Amino acid sequence: MTTNPLQIALVGLGTVGTGVIKLINENGAMIAQRAGRSVEIVAVSARDKGRDRGVNLGKYQWIDDLGALATNPDVDCVVELIGGSDGTALELAKNSLNARKSFITANKAMIAHHGMELARLAEDHGVSLKYEAAVAGGVPVIKGLREGASANRIERVYGILNGTCNYILTTMEKHGRDFDTVLKDAQDLGYAEADPGFDIEGVDAAHKLAILAALSFGKAIDFEGVETAGIRSIMAADIGQAKALGYRIRLLGMARIDDDKLFQRVNPYLVPESHPLAHIDGSTNAVVAEGNFSGRLMFQGAGAGDGPTASSVVADLIDIARGENGTVFAVPASKMEKIERAESGNRTGKTYIRFIVADKPGVLAEITAAMRDASVSIESLIQTEKTAEGSVLISMVTHDSLERDVTNSLANLSSSTSLQGAPVVMHLLSDED
Amino acid sequence: MTTNPLQIALVGLGTVGTGVIKLINENGAMIAQRAGRSVEIVAVSARDKGRDRGVNLGKYQWIDDLGALATNPDVDCVVELIGGSDGTALELAKNSLNARKSFITANKAMIAHHGMELARLAEDHGVSLKYEAAVAGGVPVIKGLREGASANRIERVYGILNGTCNYILTTMEKHGRDFDTVLKDAQDLGYAEADPGFDIEGVDAAHKLAILAALSFGKAIDFEGVETAGIRSIMAADIGQAKALGYRIRLLGMARIDDDKLFQRVNPYLVPESHPLAHIDGSTNAVVAEGNFSGRLMFQGAGAGDGPTASSVVADLIDIARGENGTVFAVPASKMEKIERAESGNRTGKTYIRFIVADKPGVLAEITAAMRDASVSIESLIQTEKTAEGSVLISMVTHDSLERDVTNSLANLSSSTSLQGAPVVMHLLSDED
Repeated sequence: MTTNPLQIALVGLGTVGTGVIKLINENGAMIAQRAGRSVEIVAVSARDKGRDRGVNLGKYQWIDDLGALATNPDVDCVVELIGGSDGTALELAKNSLNARKSFITANKAMIAHHGMELARLAEDHGVSLKYEAAVAGGVPVIKGLREGASANRIERVYGILNGTCNYILTTMEKHGRDFDTVLKDAQDLGYAEADPGFDIEGVDAAHKLAILAALSFGKAIDFEGVETAGIRSIMAADIGQAKALGYRIRLLGMARIDDDKLFQRVNPYLVPESHPLAHIDGSTNAVVAEGNFSGRLMFQGAGAGDGPTASSVVADLIDIARGENGTVFAVPASKMEKIERAESGNRTGKTYIRFIVADKPGVLAEITAAMRDASVSIESLIQTEKTAEGSVLISMVTHDSLERDVTNSLANLSSSTSLQGAPVVMHLLSDED
Repeated sequence: MTTNPLQIALVGLGTVGTGVIKLINENGAMIAQRAGRSVEIVAVSARDKGRDRGVNLGKYQWIDDLGALATNPDVDCVVELIGGSDGTALELAKNSLNARKSFITANKAMIAHHGMELARLAEDHGVSLKYEAAVAGGVPVIKGLREGASANRIERVYGILNGTCNYILTTMEKHGRDFDTVLKDAQDLGYAEADPGFDIEGVDAAHKLAILAALSFGKAIDFEGVETAGIRSIMAADIGQAKALGYRIRLLGMARIDDDKLFQRVNPYLVPESHPLAHIDGSTNAVVAEGNFSGRLMFQGAGAGDGPTASSVVADLIDIARGENGTVFAVPASKMEKIERAESGNRTGKTYIRFIVADKPGVLAEITAAMRDASVSIESLIQTEKTAEGSVLISMVTHDSLERDVTNSLANLSSSTSLQGAPVVMHLLSDED
């Protein structure tokens, strides 16, 4: 095996890009020992050459033309840290792989949308495409699933995939505060983006889930097939109710194969306190994989941040430097077939439903009749304090029910004048989910 | 790369060995797809050929002579599942590596004692030596540290490394029962060995810790350097006291580099409820690695059992089938120097100390004077109920103190006639441990 340095080009010099430079500067000697050869940045590129990033860029070639960068003969491997599912990042990926450069990215949106095409390109050209940093930041979960759990048929894969949402939910839980105020604080503290849509609507988690599902089940990525909901409608009262029942609320990505169909959902779940995910607080990410021999494995750590993300990017670089050059996912991309989507309506489980209703006689009778008419039976029901607006909260947990029946029960209530806003629906995490 | 089957010989057909056969039978097609070629058992060996193991051995060559097995030209890779640090297992390892066969083992004792010598042998001959199943059963923590966290200087590595001890401690915690009765139940249920010494005295955890430390720090394995204590002297009352203070008691293996010296200890710790290890219950194992860029990573799952252990053994096989053939630890064995041991006496932290004393005047004064004379100051102290024998329990937590001073304070009391038995000493896990 060669002992020449692995020469890399770094594209995108935001916090993660500069984090990679700092990491290689600080841990470079150790990395060379572990990789069997040194990992050297030879070229960099970013939109704004002039900005002070707190690292010395003088020793690297600055290349504005990304087309030229992708084909530069000095470059063995291109590291893309600019983001965005299409456009510049995608073009760079294709050009680099076509030029037989290995390619490393932290770009979950691009892999979720174009991962299959890029994987085929990499495998056809015999180069690596690696994306450890795209899921769960610094947690080596891509490696854990692709290699660590490789002896298993994975029965389901799920977890806390968005640190912003988990920070918001666990802060609401700790202080009994409502979503809007906690989000505002999180934005002020830099834990949430000024435009937090992708995070709190569940889209970011859905990107990651689609990648994990493809890796775990050996089926084509199907990002559009992820049923996605966010956390915006969760109230402190929901968290309190869940707690009283022995549950914590977490936004989970959940994927499994049901009768040869792919089920993928991002939704807030009620997680029993006995489950390890109930104890994942703050911006930590955690991924659970249940294998048919390993049983339940869990990987946890920082889901974002420059240091953790750089740690995953450089782990990929070390793998490439060591000569690791296998498939992009667990099996060759050409073997990963697209499969049908499972209908969530066919699923059975307990469901938490919360209504905000007018404080007037007969409302409870109306709701319970609608549930009965849809064959949904109620395990527990709590009617709680009035809101500031004089409304009443009604929270219930159903017995095991078909999700279709729960949906129908709520449809029965859609024209009700007693309900104030759409009901909030969350599933209870069980061993069958 | 070759697409010929990887042909393996399986030595040892206890529960794990038969688990490997079951796994390959059940998941074989998927394994072939992931590995790029099939993994086939061609030969087996065990002490008792006649025993019914519930799997069909008829299709494999049975080889009694392990010397011949190690050099058999049909065998690419030998899997050792017989156990024992020396003797047959060690001889088989050396013979196999010398015959340029890759070698996979679940044998933590052998790696802890002879890992450096075997690693050098494997690296000199250009073959793999893999041992994922030796630490934390089904949890891919060797891979997680060797590859997933490879970009980091690991600042400390620690965790719950023995499922039997964790089962006993968490069962004591849940039911308020004492060690002896819980151990007996665990033995009846098969969670503890008939001779549980290696587990409950901390030796098994020490084997695993020494391996993790070598892997994390790139220094030679130093099993003899692990300060080891077990859980036999922990009472239900200790667990109750810890809980009242916001802690759970867990047997931890803890390793770090202090001023270029290696600190390794297995001891019960008081783990704060805010730490993820406080929520690891039952026979689960969990390993925490703190990297200088990744921050805190945790890997958890089943620490033992035939399925999980087989999952790790076969993951190693798939790596070998894929052509992975790097160093045994994170860096070449020839570069892993033996380093000095750090003295635990130089460490500073809070300590829990519990005395059983005679119920007579002046005892508390005697103890507190001994602490004062050794410059140990007390943060909290609880004197609790009498035992059945009419003794009194005194539990205290010190302020941050030098461990040497704590040891001296207890030495001051060694000739006291008030103390009934040796005091129990546990450290409080902190971010500095």
